[in-house]
Amino acid sequence: MSISTHAQAAQDRYFMMLAIEQAKQGQYTARPNPAVGCVIVQNEHIVGQGFHPQAGQPHAEVFALKDAGAQAFGATAYVTLEPCSHTGRTPPCALALINSGVKRVVIAGLDPNPQVAGRGVALLEQAGIEVTVDILTAQAEALNHGFLKAMRTQLPYVRLKIATSLDGRTAMATGESKWITSPASREDVQKLRARSGAIITGSTTVMTDNPQLNVRSHQLGVVLEKIPNPMVVVLDRRARLAYDVQSDYHLCRCAKTLYWREDNLHELLTTLVNDYQCYDVLVEAGASVAGSFLSQNLVDELIVYQAPCLLGSQARAMVDFNPLSLAQQLRFDCYSHETIGADLKLTLLPT
Amino acid sequence: MSISTHAQAAQDRYFMMLAIEQAKQGQYTARPNPAVGCVIVQNEHIVGQGFHPQAGQPHAEVFALKDAGAQAFGATAYVTLEPCSHTGRTPPCALALINSGVKRVVIAGLDPNPQVAGRGVALLEQAGIEVTVDILTAQAEALNHGFLKAMRTQLPYVRLKIATSLDGRTAMATGESKWITSPASREDVQKLRARSGAIITGSTTVMTDNPQLNVRSHQLGVVLEKIPNPMVVVLDRRARLAYDVQSDYHLCRCAKTLYWREDNLHELLTTLVNDYQCYDVLVEAGASVAGSFLSQNLVDELIVYQAPCLLGSQARAMVDFNPLSLAQQLRFDCYSHETIGADLKLTLLPT
Repeated sequence: MSISTHAQAAQDRYFMMLAIEQAKQGQYTARPNPAVGCVIVQNEHIVGQGFHPQAGQPHAEVFALKDAGAQAFGATAYVTLEPCSHTGRTPPCALALINSGVKRVVIAGLDPNPQVAGRGVALLEQAGIEVTVDILTAQAEALNHGFLKAMRTQLPYVRLKIATSLDGRTAMATGESKWITSPASREDVQKLRARSGAIITGSTTVMTDNPQLNVRSHQLGVVLEKIPNPMVVVLDRRARLAYDVQSDYHLCRCAKTLYWREDNLHELLTTLVNDYQCYDVLVEAGASVAGSFLSQNLVDELIVYQAPCLLGSQARAMVDFNPLSLAQQLRFDCYSHETIGADLKLTLLPT
Repeated sequence: MSISTHAQAAQDRYFMMLAIEQAKQGQYTARPNPAVGCVIVQNEHIVGQGFHPQAGQPHAEVFALKDAGAQAFGATAYVTLEPCSHTGRTPPCALALINSGVKRVVIAGLDPNPQVAGRGVALLEQAGIEVTVDILTAQAEALNHGFLKAMRTQLPYVRLKIATSLDGRTAMATGESKWITSPASREDVQKLRARSGAIITGSTTVMTDNPQLNVRSHQLGVVLEKIPNPMVVVLDRRARLAYDVQSDYHLCRCAKTLYWREDNLHELLTTLVNDYQCYDVLVEAGASVAGSFLSQNLVDELIVYQAPCLLGSQARAMVDFNPLSLAQQLRFDCYSHETIGADLKLTLLPT
C-alpha cells in the first residue's frame, strides 16, 4: 500500500484523535501519571486500543497491543505520549512495541520526563521502526498540562477557579454567598477537582464556608472510587485552624490535608511537585488567596463561573489586589466561553 | 401549483427570512419609523424586493412592488410588518398591494401602531386577498424592539451598555479608564448608537469623559450622512452643566441635546416617546445612572463589553446599587455571548 504524504498526514491526525479519545478515559484516574491513549492500526483498520487507567496498572501501549494480539505485526501504533524507555512499576513500553512487530509508531509529543525525553524514540528507531513525532501535539498535551509542566519546570499547572456575579462579586457584604452560580456550574467544578492532584484553599474559606473540597460527582463517566481524592492544602499562615478544632470542618477525611504556614507560595508549589507528585493544582479560595496567586503570576489558567446577576457595589470583590494604574492591570486571553446552566464559564490564560 | 401545507410553511419562512434581510438595510436609517422589508414572489421566484430607507420615503411594499412591476399580479408578498392602512406622509400600503393584484400577503407580525393594528389585514382580506400572519414573528420584531414597545406601552426599549473588566470594574480608583475594552468593542458600540433615537448619559460622564456620543463609524454598511444622529439626553439633576460652559464639551453639535433636571426617569422615558419619537434608547453612563435604571427595572437589555482583565478591588464598581441580601440581586438571562476583538460581549435580558 502506498499513499500520498498528504493522505498519510490526514490519516495520522485521524487515528491520533482516536488515541486522544482513548487517553481521555484515564484523565481523572491516572494521576500522578499522565493520561495516555494508544490505537493500533493495520491496513487502515483499528485492531487494538487502550489507555492508561491508573498508576501501577499497565500503560496504554500494553493494553492496545494485547487487544491487537498477532494483528499488531506490521501495524502502525498511535500513542499520545512518547513510549517510556525505563523500567518503572511496569517494563518499558518501547520494548513492548518492538517485540510486537509494529513497523511504525506515531507519537503526539515527546515525554519531557527526564527518564524518557527522547530515549523512547531512540529505542524504537534503533530497532528499525519508523517513528513520526508531532501529530496533534497541542491537543494531546492539553490532557496533561500538569504532568508536562512539572516535568519541564518542577512547578505544577495551577488553575484558579472563581465563582462570581456579572459585576465581579463573590458574596454579599454580610458574607452570604450560597448560591451565586447554578448547580450546573458547581457540578462542572467536580471535573476540575477530579483532574487535580491538590486543591489549595485558605483558612478563611474553611472557617467561613466549611467546604468538603472532594470529588463526589457520579456524572464524571468513571466509577467514583477510581478517582483519587485530591490532597487538600489549607493556607493557614496565622495557624488559625488549631488541630483540635479541625474536626469541626468538612474537609474530606479520606484525603491528605496539608496545613501550609509559610508565606512562600512558590515554595509550596515546588513542594507539591517534588514531595507529593501533585502536578495539577486547583485553587479554590477567597479573594485574598486568589489575589496572591494572581499578583505573583502563579496562575496558568483562570476559570470563572459567572452568574448573570448583579450583586451591587457593596458586595465582596472577586480578587484582592490593588494595581495603581491601568498599566498594572492583569491581562488574559479568553481561551473559551460557554454556557453552563444559567451561567457563563470563561477559561482565561494570562497574557 | 399545489404544495403541501408543510412545504408552504417552509417556503413562507424562507422568503420571510429574505424580507427580514431587506428590512435590516433600513435599521439605522428608518428612525423613528420601523425597519420593514418586503419580497414579492411569483412561482417560487423573487420578482421584487425593497425596504423602507427613511422617514418620508416610500414604504418597503412600494419599493418592492415597483421592482416587481407587472409580475406582482397573482404573486405572494412577504412583509415583515403589517402593511399600513392609513394615509400618513405616504398613501396606505395595503391599497398599493391590492392595486398591484397580489393574491396572497404573508406578514411576520401585526403593527401595534393604533393607526394600523389589524386594519391593514382587514383591508387586504376585504379585497379578497389571502393573508397569513405570524411567520418568523420574533425574528422580525427583533429589528423593531423600540417601535413595537413604544406603540404598545408608550415607553421606549432601553438598552444599557457597560464596558467593564472581568472583575466588574469600569475605571481605576483615580478615574483612569481609557481604555479598558478593545477598539473592536468601541466600534461595536457604534451599532448600538446607530439604532438609537436617544442616548442618555449623566452630567458626571460628560464632565469626566467628555464623550462625543455620536455615530461616526464608516463601517455600518450605510452612508454615515443617512443615519440620524441620536438625540443626547444629559441627566443633570443638580444643573452642573450651566449653559455657558457646555461649549467645553464634545457632545455632538449636530444632535439635539436635552438636559433633564428631574428625578423621574419614567417620566423622561415617556417624554422621549411622546415628545421626541425616540423609541430605542441607549444608556451610556456611569455606575450611578446605571444603578438607577437597573434598580427601577427600566432596562430591557443589558449589554456588557467585558475585557479579559482584572483591575482590582479598589477600582470603580460597575453598578451603584445596594441589595441587602442575595434575594434582592438583579437576575438576567444570558441571551448571547460572543467575542468582539479581545473582549466578550454579553447581551442579557432581565428575568
